[in-house]
Amino acid sequence: MLMIPGPTPVPEKVLLAMAKHPIGHRSGDFSKIIGELNENLKWLHQTTNEVLTLCVSGTGAMEAGIINFLSAGDRVLVGNNGKFGDRWAKMSRAFGLQVEEITAEWGQPLNPETFKEKLEADTNKQIKAVIVTHSETSTGVLNDLKTINEYVKAHGEALIIVDAVTSLGAVNVPIDEWGLDVVASGSQKGYMIPPGLGFVSVSDKAWKAYETATLPKFYLDLAPYKKANGKNSSPFTPPINLMFGLKAALEMMREEGLENIFARHKHLTEVTRAGIKELGLPLFAADDCAALAVTAVMPDKHDAEAIRSNMSKKYDIALAGGQDHLKGKIFRIGHLGFASEADMLKGLAALKATLKQLG
Amino acid sequence: MLMIPGPTPVPEKVLLAMAKHPIGHRSGDFSKIIGELNENLKWLHQTTNEVLTLCVSGTGAMEAGIINFLSAGDRVLVGNNGKFGDRWAKMSRAFGLQVEEITAEWGQPLNPETFKEKLEADTNKQIKAVIVTHSETSTGVLNDLKTINEYVKAHGEALIIVDAVTSLGAVNVPIDEWGLDVVASGSQKGYMIPPGLGFVSVSDKAWKAYETATLPKFYLDLAPYKKANGKNSSPFTPPINLMFGLKAALEMMREEGLENIFARHKHLTEVTRAGIKELGLPLFAADDCAALAVTAVMPDKHDAEAIRSNMSKKYDIALAGGQDHLKGKIFRIGHLGFASEADMLKGLAALKATLKQLG
Repeated sequence: MLMIPGPTPVPEKVLLAMAKHPIGHRSGDFSKIIGELNENLKWLHQTTNEVLTLCVSGTGAMEAGIINFLSAGDRVLVGNNGKFGDRWAKMSRAFGLQVEEITAEWGQPLNPETFKEKLEADTNKQIKAVIVTHSETSTGVLNDLKTINEYVKAHGEALIIVDAVTSLGAVNVPIDEWGLDVVASGSQKGYMIPPGLGFVSVSDKAWKAYETATLPKFYLDLAPYKKANGKNSSPFTPPINLMFGLKAALEMMREEGLENIFARHKHLTEVTRAGIKELGLPLFAADDCAALAVTAVMPDKHDAEAIRSNMSKKYDIALAGGQDHLKGKIFRIGHLGFASEADMLKGLAALKATLKQLG
Repeated sequence: MLMIPGPTPVPEKVLLAMAKHPIGHRSGDFSKIIGELNENLKWLHQTTNEVLTLCVSGTGAMEAGIINFLSAGDRVLVGNNGKFGDRWAKMSRAFGLQVEEITAEWGQPLNPETFKEKLEADTNKQIKAVIVTHSETSTGVLNDLKTINEYVKAHGEALIIVDAVTSLGAVNVPIDEWGLDVVASGSQKGYMIPPGLGFVSVSDKAWKAYETATLPKFYLDLAPYKKANGKNSSPFTPPINLMFGLKAALEMMREEGLENIFARHKHLTEVTRAGIKELGLPLFAADDCAALAVTAVMPDKHDAEAIRSNMSKKYDIALAGGQDHLKGKIFRIGHLGFASEADMLKGLAALKATLKQLG
């Protein structure tokens, strides 16, 4: 039983859809599937923007979201309060961007006011993009994207580029309503399908920036994906069977409805956090910035790895460990995608038993 | 029934392996799978070089094979006698390489002597790489990689970077014996699994070039893949279910044996070409440069698209069409991966019936 923040549990319907024999990716039948996927992806993203599907992990989707709209030397602000924020700062530097990091301690949310100050001080409009991780998977912290984005909008020039890998499909990310320019996500999270597909939603403003962006690209060049999307096609051979799975998963999501999906994730988060408090374990992120995809726990009387090991061996439940300097110090419970209250209750009960067994 | 040069038919065993529930990619169980895959990939590639597995299409694998070992301004020779050779020339230019194309008409093989002349004339050793498509999928031509590579070896400095997307697993590509530096391939071809995985084999000489190569990269930076491979891990979330399928497919390939696999593809090619000749249809590529993955046919009395349409509607057999300027002029029969003589006989019989029906 997967209780990690990705890969997340996959419904049987999706697994069986993936076990179908592939069809030709240039056939009329597959074109129809792409057309349906594109429509449902726009629904899920709450946008009329093009949502592009790539054969990449979430990191590949974020790279596409960054390199298509910027040039070497461009100044960018990167929010960094965890492993993924840190990765986007490293990635931006690898492409020669002039990176200014806005940091917070791991476990704390980014302070939107710091973004405000930097953006207001930039009267020459040198900041070309603000790169923010919405839900920081490594710490279970949800950053205040809405407020940060308001300051980006007030700046007027900078694009907002969002890592929504563990927020899309779990928490409200109203792309058109907020005016989010670039939003990247990955299949093995809220989408309820195995890893292998990345998604990038691109606004008109971002496409305008694309025209003058000069970072070299080919496989991740989004213009051919956009062109192909308009013809319900793909520039390169797409991961056909994963797209069969995506079709089944998006149908399930439409049936459940966005409001219900968001409410379910909120409820799962509350159930999990209440259960952890009841067990007397310290939560790593505060209630008011808790991610709706993953809850990080920092046990003070037990070894985090011993807890994970017992949960795995005795109950066949996979929890995630800490990353980088949090390795061995925290464990993380995923409650994202195809997860129910019963799953959480099972996980919490097994955790209670584990704590007893470990003394 | 897929008779296109990718995606190729997928065995039921592989489809069912892919329908298994994903497990955590950082778990010990998955690490064991990666270890087994790495060993079997080396066997398939006939190499002790690291073979890296990426979540990309074949184009992504080729991009990784190019950008990791070169810097902007580097001079490269690119063989171009079809759509894919053309793509690698475009890709190389997109990354600022100084590209010299060695061309041949579509349907003709590249002339190794042209490579020899260019390489011998380069006494200053300015040519950093020679990029060659082994099996040109768009035309059904197998380029003489062995001879071209001998001239690259005589040059001494240049790397050989090979697109083996429709040759690996169909025709002999003895990486260590020939000393091929970088060899890229994709899952939906000889590997008998759906699209979504790319593979890159890298020689020590190429890793040495990596150290001074300056093209920007992150998702496709191969050093983290190499590092992770050494620990039976992956730098980013890998496409877990496709790797379940890869495990099953490589087991089947090991059972069949490399010699048998190559002999089967040779036989399928001979059966197909003999059948086409018997039907009085002109083969697009000559016998002595015929690819063992795909046979292109240029009907002189029939419309290629009418033949494909009838084959699809009446017999549910998918043939591939021509690409770019060959659109509507040729059709292509795939005989790659999980294909048998019976499949070819069925396809040829349906083609015979189709020709009668079209008059």
